[in-house]
Amino acid sequence: MPCSNRGRTGILACVGVLLASPLAAQPLLPWPASFQTNTGVTPIDTTFSIAVSGAGAGDSRVVESIARTFTRLARQTGLPLLPRTAQPERATLRIVVEQKDHRPPQKLGDDERYTLLIEAGRIRLSADHPLGVLRGLETFLQLVGPNPSAAGFAVPNVEIRDEPRFPWRGLSLDVSRHFIPVEGIQRTVDGMAAVKLNILHWHLSDDQGFRVESRRYPGLQREGADGQFYTQAEIRDVIAYALQRGVRIVPEFDMPGHSTSWLAGYPDLGSRPGPYQIVREYGDAYGAIDPTRESTYRFLDGFLGEMAKLFPDEYFHIGGDEVDAKQWTSQPRIRDYMKQHRMATAAELQAYFNQRVQKTLARYGKRMVGWDEILGPGLPKSVVVQSWRGQKSLADAARQGYSGILSAGYYLDLMRPAAEHYAVDPLKGETAGLSPEEQKRILGGEAAMWEELATAENLDAKLWPRLAAIAERFWSPESVSDPAGLYARLAAVGRWLEWLGLTQRFNLVLMRERLAGPIPMASLDQFASLLEPVKGYERHRNHYGAASPFNHLVDSIPPESDTARDFLSAVERYLASPDAAGAENLSRRFAAWEQNAAQLRPMLESNPLLAENAPLAAAVVTICRSAREALSYRAAAAPANWKMSTLAALTQAAAHQANMLVAIAPAVQKLVEAIP
Amino acid sequence: MPCSNRGRTGILACVGVLLASPLAAQPLLPWPASFQTNTGVTPIDTTFSIAVSGAGAGDSRVVESIARTFTRLARQTGLPLLPRTAQPERATLRIVVEQKDHRPPQKLGDDERYTLLIEAGRIRLSADHPLGVLRGLETFLQLVGPNPSAAGFAVPNVEIRDEPRFPWRGLSLDVSRHFIPVEGIQRTVDGMAAVKLNILHWHLSDDQGFRVESRRYPGLQREGADGQFYTQAEIRDVIAYALQRGVRIVPEFDMPGHSTSWLAGYPDLGSRPGPYQIVREYGDAYGAIDPTRESTYRFLDGFLGEMAKLFPDEYFHIGGDEVDAKQWTSQPRIRDYMKQHRMATAAELQAYFNQRVQKTLARYGKRMVGWDEILGPGLPKSVVVQSWRGQKSLADAARQGYSGILSAGYYLDLMRPAAEHYAVDPLKGETAGLSPEEQKRILGGEAAMWEELATAENLDAKLWPRLAAIAERFWSPESVSDPAGLYARLAAVGRWLEWLGLTQRFNLVLMRERLAGPIPMASLDQFASLLEPVKGYERHRNHYGAASPFNHLVDSIPPESDTARDFLSAVERYLASPDAAGAENLSRRFAAWEQNAAQLRPMLESNPLLAENAPLAAAVVTICRSAREALSYRAAAAPANWKMSTLAALTQAAAHQANMLVAIAPAVQKLVEAIP
Repeated sequence: MPCSNRGRTGILACVGVLLASPLAAQPLLPWPASFQTNTGVTPIDTTFSIAVSGAGAGDSRVVESIARTFTRLARQTGLPLLPRTAQPERATLRIVVEQKDHRPPQKLGDDERYTLLIEAGRIRLSADHPLGVLRGLETFLQLVGPNPSAAGFAVPNVEIRDEPRFPWRGLSLDVSRHFIPVEGIQRTVDGMAAVKLNILHWHLSDDQGFRVESRRYPGLQREGADGQFYTQAEIRDVIAYALQRGVRIVPEFDMPGHSTSWLAGYPDLGSRPGPYQIVREYGDAYGAIDPTRESTYRFLDGFLGEMAKLFPDEYFHIGGDEVDAKQWTSQPRIRDYMKQHRMATAAELQAYFNQRVQKTLARYGKRMVGWDEILGPGLPKSVVVQSWRGQKSLADAARQGYSGILSAGYYLDLMRPAAEHYAVDPLKGETAGLSPEEQKRILGGEAAMWEELATAENLDAKLWPRLAAIAERFWSPESVSDPAGLYARLAAVGRWLEWLGLTQRFNLVLMRERLAGPIPMASLDQFASLLEPVKGYERHRNHYGAASPFNHLVDSIPPESDTARDFLSAVERYLASPDAAGAENLSRRFAAWEQNAAQLRPMLESNPLLAENAPLAAAVVTICRSAREALSYRAAAAPANWKMSTLAALTQAAAHQANMLVAIAPAVQKLVEAIP
Repeated sequence: MPCSNRGRTGILACVGVLLASPLAAQPLLPWPASFQTNTGVTPIDTTFSIAVSGAGAGDSRVVESIARTFTRLARQTGLPLLPRTAQPERATLRIVVEQKDHRPPQKLGDDERYTLLIEAGRIRLSADHPLGVLRGLETFLQLVGPNPSAAGFAVPNVEIRDEPRFPWRGLSLDVSRHFIPVEGIQRTVDGMAAVKLNILHWHLSDDQGFRVESRRYPGLQREGADGQFYTQAEIRDVIAYALQRGVRIVPEFDMPGHSTSWLAGYPDLGSRPGPYQIVREYGDAYGAIDPTRESTYRFLDGFLGEMAKLFPDEYFHIGGDEVDAKQWTSQPRIRDYMKQHRMATAAELQAYFNQRVQKTLARYGKRMVGWDEILGPGLPKSVVVQSWRGQKSLADAARQGYSGILSAGYYLDLMRPAAEHYAVDPLKGETAGLSPEEQKRILGGEAAMWEELATAENLDAKLWPRLAAIAERFWSPESVSDPAGLYARLAAVGRWLEWLGLTQRFNLVLMRERLAGPIPMASLDQFASLLEPVKGYERHRNHYGAASPFNHLVDSIPPESDTARDFLSAVERYLASPDAAGAENLSRRFAAWEQNAAQLRPMLESNPLLAENAPLAAAVVTICRSAREALSYRAAAAPANWKMSTLAALTQAAAHQANMLVAIAPAVQKLVEAIP
């Protein structure tokens, strides 16, 4: 059954074929550029062996990724696999890596293409460069599943030719608002490499914390980190760890705004007179570096010189977002400076700062990256602009000749569904009108995870599996865009990622159990499966700070309710062709939810840690009752005003409580609205 | 509500009180020597601080355990806790450690007593020595739970004075039959320290693998390990890791039997002519070291000298079990030697070997430990005998003046229920008749985990929570022995151990999901919850080897079915006082099980990885049908022969399949037998 990747329909057919086979447990994500499946499978058993040849065979990335492949295959199958090499013609998996890659550090645009051919019991992976081997091995591992025709494991016979759509496929990860220990970073790199992301943009400083050891300016971590920072040895370990997995580390030190944590140890860098403390309550006044003093640039020269050595990547991110102009304009000394230098606005002063910093970075061999506010006069075209405010700034930058990466639309901290991020494309919207040459300047994109409301404990659940959807957007052809196909693969790939040690499911279980006390977990879990965290910046408006615990029910649920999404599909199917079986299917669901929520409510009320969620149980009861009534009124006419009063009750029940929403409400609203 | 620990009834009352409070989520295990609970709780919030004073305050074990306490408290509560010290009179937790302990290495009999007083918002932990602080901190952490009267966490106000019953409280862990990587050893040490075990007896060599790097004899790991061994650096790391947690590492190198893996690299050590290979199929002929050659003792002198330096503990285990006498008696050269030296039996030859080895070890400052076969003439009384064959050899050893530790009855690989191990007491049975002085020679005991049928993947599930029951036997007063109280606490402590990263629950989930394919997990899980692995050596009789995969359903279920134990209690309650509610409760359960098993059976049959389990689904259906009939015949008389034919069908259904038993069968048998 050839299943070639020609246009959208072809791809959907392929996904369908794959899902229909027992191998669907490990579908591919990101979907390859070209995919063809043939009949039969190639078994994976304890005789599994690998041979590697070609000029790049000795590259340490290749050697280490092969060693990891045995370990991961053993975990995925439970087979006692030990590293085993064989003659190329006898090996189960034969790898040919034609050329030795450029030496590390890995560079933007390094070749990541690979070909994976599986047939007649032989697997062949070819790549021109080591990175292609890494990417292809992930694809191979995703394909491993139960053998449909024998007690064992296998990969389907396929022909895959794959390459990325964009060279910059990143995650911007904030470790300032909440510190993420090294193991969390390593886990994240593991997951990123698994879905073929290639850049960890490490947001290492912000008002709330400075997270890197500086030997030159030790006051940065001493006064700016509450003891929570990475030593230089740890940084080097993470960089080496990421390099082995084909992931570049681009550091960000946010300046001149978002820099209060620098000023705690070095108040003379600040625009206002000190002393400063790191920001422990959100909403406190933030500091900004003083761009008018020469001493600032002497400090930055020393600091950037040190960090340029520590971080080998060619790119270096200086932040540059959200400078609080009042930090400058409120200071007569700075106002005088601006007047003297004919700078009318704070933006002009920041542009001056950017130019100075860019020159320093260039001297240390670095290309500067910044958030879209850095776009201003006088910057060389080598600078890369990361757009967070919208696609327009990305298009503007490209028109002006700058390279750009898109982050607007990819903010994972806003708790939006995967499909919403998936629909955002770096080359659609404002950028669609660019000339081909301008479009080439769009290097790709970055998901962004800001940690105001997330912690090391639930980081994985905030990232995964949604980050995989964004990874597919950056890697796969533009035409791969069906949300239903995405969700089917996302569920399986989410499970697959757990073999790497990611904790998105089990850590949330532990967090809910911590809250439950004597409440039966099955009951709490079913209730929680109907909820989602509030979206956007709604929750940020509450007052949070360094001492706020993120151990509430909202912190222990995934950003997106699979149950609600499933239910919505069932409602839509029913409304499209209403029949008794569909009605029965629906009513069985909300009868169970209603009964459970009604029983749970008094238990929540008597549990101090969960009492805040009792109104949500009441809302679930109301919503399910409305659904029940709506179904019954499809047969008999509804009483006058029923629809209006029910929709009003639904709106009230759907309002958020304890920072959560009842995620099944929109589907029920559809049911009610469909009543004549 | 004072709840003093005087005799068994008092303890049960205490456990009852604790379980009735919301703090029961973290009950104590092992139960302390003396426990009194007072009214009220002491909150744990973000102001939590620790002060430490006394001569032992600077001991690194104290310092590091305090740092870990903050991390663990943060995980258990989700509170953003950073290390915070305070003046002693203001600290939430004040630790006083009177004396500096003996310097490491920790020694047998080091003082582990502590007192933990919690009242009026203040926690005070006192100990004479650092080890007492470590033990007391574990007790404190077990007490942390939801605050019953406010949204937050707390510890109950209690007065605990605690000390161990036995100084030797160990786990013997085989890493030869299946290798356990360093992280698995560290996790195990974490769990052991949490339940106050203090010795990891590391079974480092056996016929199937030699697991330590020797620099003097590198052929040991090169030819004897298939690449799976610990480097000396790793060994040192593990020892340091364990030391910080108050756990001693006692190495075992099994000799002169169980030593085939030594002979792979050094065939001249063997009794038969070589070459030898490590044993890859169970049932192959095993080798034995030749005790008649002087070259053997020169080798051992070099090897033991090297290992004596690597492992700092005073005790050193030489195995000594199950020598295959034919390895010696089949060799004319060895028979001649025996004749010449007037040795009538292989046991006498082994006694000679033991004496030589003991002298070597003594020269390196070590006390020898061995399995009970080493008990023979000519050994100094400093030798410790570990009894695996039964309590009689322990009693014999004590009468002869040897110290002893009990392992018979504590073999976790035999898949027995926790209560069975719990009922075994080092000072009951044959040892009960010893004089007080002889009883003092019983140092304690060791659980044993042999890894023929276990792997790194399911190790935690094979150990936990059952190991905690044995830990209580070794630590708590003899009178703490109620199995119902044990199980209630075991469930909660099992969950508590997961905060340390133990994987006993979640790894089994992943293993079952790997098998399930399209089968709904809820259905497979419910079915699996009724099953248990076969007991004893039943499964060992199948042929297993290094290439056998342990990825079957039997490998992915816990040794003991909580569901079956629960059901048995319900049946017993019902039979003691039959009423309609009890009958309804029971029949609801087996109706659900029967329906699920019936639906699941064809799905199992069509899944190659699970097909072997289909007969078990059929057995579940039969067993549940018998239960249903039994209930119905309590009202109406059963047909003639019903009972006899049903019991016969039950016996057949209860027979093991795919290495598993239907664990609810015995309870149903009781139901059927109760029919007149």
